[in-house]
Amino acid sequence: MDYQKIINQIAQEVSVKESKGKVASYIPELSCVPSDKLGMHLYCINSGHYQFGDSAERFSIQSISKVFALTMAMLAPAEDLFKRVDVEPSGDPFNSLIQLEYEKGIPRNPFINAGALVVSDLLISHLENPKEEFLEFVRAIAHTKSIGINDAVYQSEKRHSDRNASLVHLMKSFGNIENDVDEVLDFYIYQCAVEMSCKELAMAFMIYANGGALLNTDSQIIAPSKIKRINAIMQTCGFYDEAGEFSFRVGLPGKSGVGGGIAAIHPGQYAVTVWSPPLNAKGNSELGMLCLENLTTLTGLSIF
Amino acid sequence: MDYQKIINQIAQEVSVKESKGKVASYIPELSCVPSDKLGMHLYCINSGHYQFGDSAERFSIQSISKVFALTMAMLAPAEDLFKRVDVEPSGDPFNSLIQLEYEKGIPRNPFINAGALVVSDLLISHLENPKEEFLEFVRAIAHTKSIGINDAVYQSEKRHSDRNASLVHLMKSFGNIENDVDEVLDFYIYQCAVEMSCKELAMAFMIYANGGALLNTDSQIIAPSKIKRINAIMQTCGFYDEAGEFSFRVGLPGKSGVGGGIAAIHPGQYAVTVWSPPLNAKGNSELGMLCLENLTTLTGLSIF
Amino acid sequence: MDYQKIINQIAQEVSVKESKGKVASYIPELSCVPSDKLGMHLYCINSGHYQFGDSAERFSIQSISKVFALTMAMLAPAEDLFKRVDVEPSGDPFNSLIQLEYEKGIPRNPFINAGALVVSDLLISHLENPKEEFLEFVRAIAHTKSIGINDAVYQSEKRHSDRNASLVHLMKSFGNIENDVDEVLDFYIYQCAVEMSCKELAMAFMIYANGGALLNTDSQIIAPSKIKRINAIMQTCGFYDEAGEFSFRVGLPGKSGVGGGIAAIHPGQYAVTVWSPPLNAKGNSELGMLCLENLTTLTGLSIF
Amino acid sequence: MDYQKIINQIAQEVSVKESKGKVASYIPELSCVPSDKLGMHLYCINSGHYQFGDSAERFSIQSISKVFALTMAMLAPAEDLFKRVDVEPSGDPFNSLIQLEYEKGIPRNPFINAGALVVSDLLISHLENPKEEFLEFVRAIAHTKSIGINDAVYQSEKRHSDRNASLVHLMKSFGNIENDVDEVLDFYIYQCAVEMSCKELAMAFMIYANGGALLNTDSQIIAPSKIKRINAIMQTCGFYDEAGEFSFRVGLPGKSGVGGGIAAIHPGQYAVTVWSPPLNAKGNSELGMLCLENLTTLTGLSIF
Repeated sequence: MDYQKIINQIAQEVSVKESKGKVASYIPELSCVPSDKLGMHLYCINSGHYQFGDSAERFSIQSISKVFALTMAMLAPAEDLFKRVDVEPSGDPFNSLIQLEYEKGIPRNPFINAGALVVSDLLISHLENPKEEFLEFVRAIAHTKSIGINDAVYQSEKRHSDRNASLVHLMKSFGNIENDVDEVLDFYIYQCAVEMSCKELAMAFMIYANGGALLNTDSQIIAPSKIKRINAIMQTCGFYDEAGEFSFRVGLPGKSGVGGGIAAIHPGQYAVTVWSPPLNAKGNSELGMLCLENLTTLTGLSIF
Repeated sequence: MDYQKIINQIAQEVSVKESKGKVASYIPELSCVPSDKLGMHLYCINSGHYQFGDSAERFSIQSISKVFALTMAMLAPAEDLFKRVDVEPSGDPFNSLIQLEYEKGIPRNPFINAGALVVSDLLISHLENPKEEFLEFVRAIAHTKSIGINDAVYQSEKRHSDRNASLVHLMKSFGNIENDVDEVLDFYIYQCAVEMSCKELAMAFMIYANGGALLNTDSQIIAPSKIKRINAIMQTCGFYDEAGEFSFRVGLPGKSGVGGGIAAIHPGQYAVTVWSPPLNAKGNSELGMLCLENLTTLTGLSIF
Repeated sequence: MDYQKIINQIAQEVSVKESKGKVASYIPELSCVPSDKLGMHLYCINSGHYQFGDSAERFSIQSISKVFALTMAMLAPAEDLFKRVDVEPSGDPFNSLIQLEYEKGIPRNPFINAGALVVSDLLISHLENPKEEFLEFVRAIAHTKSIGINDAVYQSEKRHSDRNASLVHLMKSFGNIENDVDEVLDFYIYQCAVEMSCKELAMAFMIYANGGALLNTDSQIIAPSKIKRINAIMQTCGFYDEAGEFSFRVGLPGKSGVGGGIAAIHPGQYAVTVWSPPLNAKGNSELGMLCLENLTTLTGLSIF
Repeated sequence: MDYQKIINQIAQEVSVKESKGKVASYIPELSCVPSDKLGMHLYCINSGHYQFGDSAERFSIQSISKVFALTMAMLAPAEDLFKRVDVEPSGDPFNSLIQLEYEKGIPRNPFINAGALVVSDLLISHLENPKEEFLEFVRAIAHTKSIGINDAVYQSEKRHSDRNASLVHLMKSFGNIENDVDEVLDFYIYQCAVEMSCKELAMAFMIYANGGALLNTDSQIIAPSKIKRINAIMQTCGFYDEAGEFSFRVGLPGKSGVGGGIAAIHPGQYAVTVWSPPLNAKGNSELGMLCLENLTTLTGLSIF
């Protein structure tokens, strides 16, 4: 398949589209990002790298970090992980307290905020230096030592974390948080503030396309059976309450972030990432979804 | 792969399990089915048929019929189909009015009762003889002319349809039902009362594994792009509020029914069906899910 | 107290107000009523009748009829009445299915539609000729034999009853409806279609102000202890999800209808009724509420 | 009326009842209170004091303090009070986040926890020394200078305040909290920890029965029009989701607390308080409700 031609065609089509979406503003620092940024990076197991646009520029990965945190939690000896967080789609906006209260403090899945906060709590209990180890893990799977956090975003989100604080206190009242509320929040916000480029994200996501192993090495980061489960959760829960729409239009497991990034994979084939800050009404990158829909349409390949 | 050996192994393991589930009782006639029935049928694109147990005995397919009805609706020139029914997982039990009221009469997806009732309404508007044409469609894709309905189940469900009547009236009050309430209910209940064996269901589901074409013929029933979308909806919405769990444990698109049947497919590989009447708390066949989990574990293959 | 002066003052103040409300339109026939109709009738135990405006013109009493139906149900030997319907405020719009589903088919109180439908079902089980006996009861307490129904409203509402049909079917699925769904709906719609003037309504409501007895006679219609309970339910549940606001601003037990009528009482003092068709966002007569607020402010009397 | 005889009769009847309720345990310190404590105090405008049992023993007034806080807020020049908190019954358990999220951070009324937390925030903005001034206000209307808080209860609740912290953070995220979250929580918990006897509570509640004035003095604490509104809110919202039941059975405005206390008033007649720690399923004192129901039955008087 001529991936370069397909990528070029997507670039051409999408570049002229004007997004009706809005750049995320609930974290003030995020709203400063230019809305016309647009990049895409495709990393194929068999044929390497293809990209266009701002694919080498770093952005705030935000909720995409939840996939890395879940992966680390599945590596930890945390037998109670899936007792403390379910694996069902939420059918509700991404930070709803309603469902959490109704279901006694057990989040629907690890990719809504509540679930990721439980995962953060669990990692704090298991890791010596949670922040450092998280960053090291991401750097390792992305093969890039310079990855770090955006301190302005980190500080900005810390000042606007009442909604997440409400979630953590609620779950603690149900006995589903072990550590100090502020520590859990701080670690969670730190993860969201990690900055990566489309290329770096695609390299990191290759482990989900490649059965848990680093490509072209002998290094098995995590068991294939666990990767399948993470991919299954991405498929059903990776896009807030638009998971069905994404599955319907794109047909790949993936995860979006309010920074405008989306990372997705085709098991055994490729990892692919896009970045365009304006979000649709459900909180996912509008042009990003369009790029990925075009990709599976033009390649004729989806997992279905 | 030695599928016969794998099927035998599943038969051995599951046959000794005792289900803690309960046979569906809300339709009295369904509760008469012996709870120890157990059958499985695997139909591979490359290597044909494998089965064990009661795989040739017909049972009430119930909600599995929703897949066939959706397929027919996607064949009809029904441009408004996905305006009248969404494609998102419900995150709620299978016949919830709560979500339907909150979302102004637009069902979350075509595989919950409300969604299937809208699909039925739409088919009534488009077909000359809805019941006959539905049956003919199922017979055609299953290559079996003798398929029909169980009249006792049909009559029994007609007498216990207040819940579904409530759904149809509510949607009609929102303007999302075009035809007479009783006619919509009658057609819907008729579809649920269709009886098929595991083998017949597996043959019918082959079109979803085989890109929309009847296997070993030139007959393309429905376009591959539409089959992908149906498979995507099965993946995210096929198991009521256990869709995530099924995706997590089994990793295949599929659909369950309260008669104890489950049909699933691996695109490009196989269609597989199981039947065991006792249902778990979420309304899915308990041993059926175990059979399918074993299948993807033993073959090492899932779509993820 | 110079009630005539107070009534004149209210007439003067309210007559110049322009309502921002909207005449009910969900029953087409109701929307034909001129929006500038305005009447008020005060009937004092000690000093008789005071009125202004269109107080002698009949209008559709709609949900005010629920008070009469509840009164008849409390007269019937219906021991299970308050097992089948609760007495708590709903905190939700007047015809919500959400709460009804969550609470297993037991309506929150007899003054929301669901509750009144259960009351209707119960009356059908206990009365020989429900419609005739209902009308006779209303005529008797209003001392007016000519009271009847508006047939155009009755027919119009019958053609737009899907929402209520949905409620009855849902409750029947929970076992909380004994009779035929259509019969329950028909009787309920019949009650709503009764037409009365402000004066007739005030005379009928005198039994609630006068401890259950017809004024100036020896005729005790219903025990004082039961009247107290009906008044308590009017206080907490008489105004859909604006019951608190009405209690806060007016401070009297009462009941509103979407025809623009409100009937209220001050125990031991008076019955008072108003009519003005435009409704506020919560479904209560906007100018009607203003009239009653002025009444308790100008008299300096409320039950609090 | 022979109130002493009535009080004696209630004492006799209720003393032999065994409560099936449970002493509140979510604040550990509260669970230490002996479950067989039982006291009642009736304070009549015309005829003075009547009591039985443990009516002179102090207990934790808990949510009854919400009435005092609301009264102070209505005295403050806080024009936005009823924009920041509604006056509708909640129809939901006492600390539900569901409704609060659905209604964008505006609590349903000032007597659920969320509403009282907004009132506390507002008082912090208006008062120099909130805690001292609150205590002084209660001492003044109860004519008792020795009233103070129970420090063990205060400390205990501070350690178990995650649920309330969740509420405050959620409302802050909606912009409905002005001050520091910890300061709001601290002041709220302080109010709940106030200890009073039935007698002291009855004296304090006399202002609500006596049109806002201290009895037998010229001192008008708060305007009669404001007292009416507070009483109206007590009537519709004073008993969590049992407000309708209390109105139905007792028929008086009142407020309960999880310490087992209930204070109620009959405008123009009396203030009455009861204390019995075991709570029914809705969080109200079981025997306390029975005492008050007997009181209005035996006196034949309720506001209805």
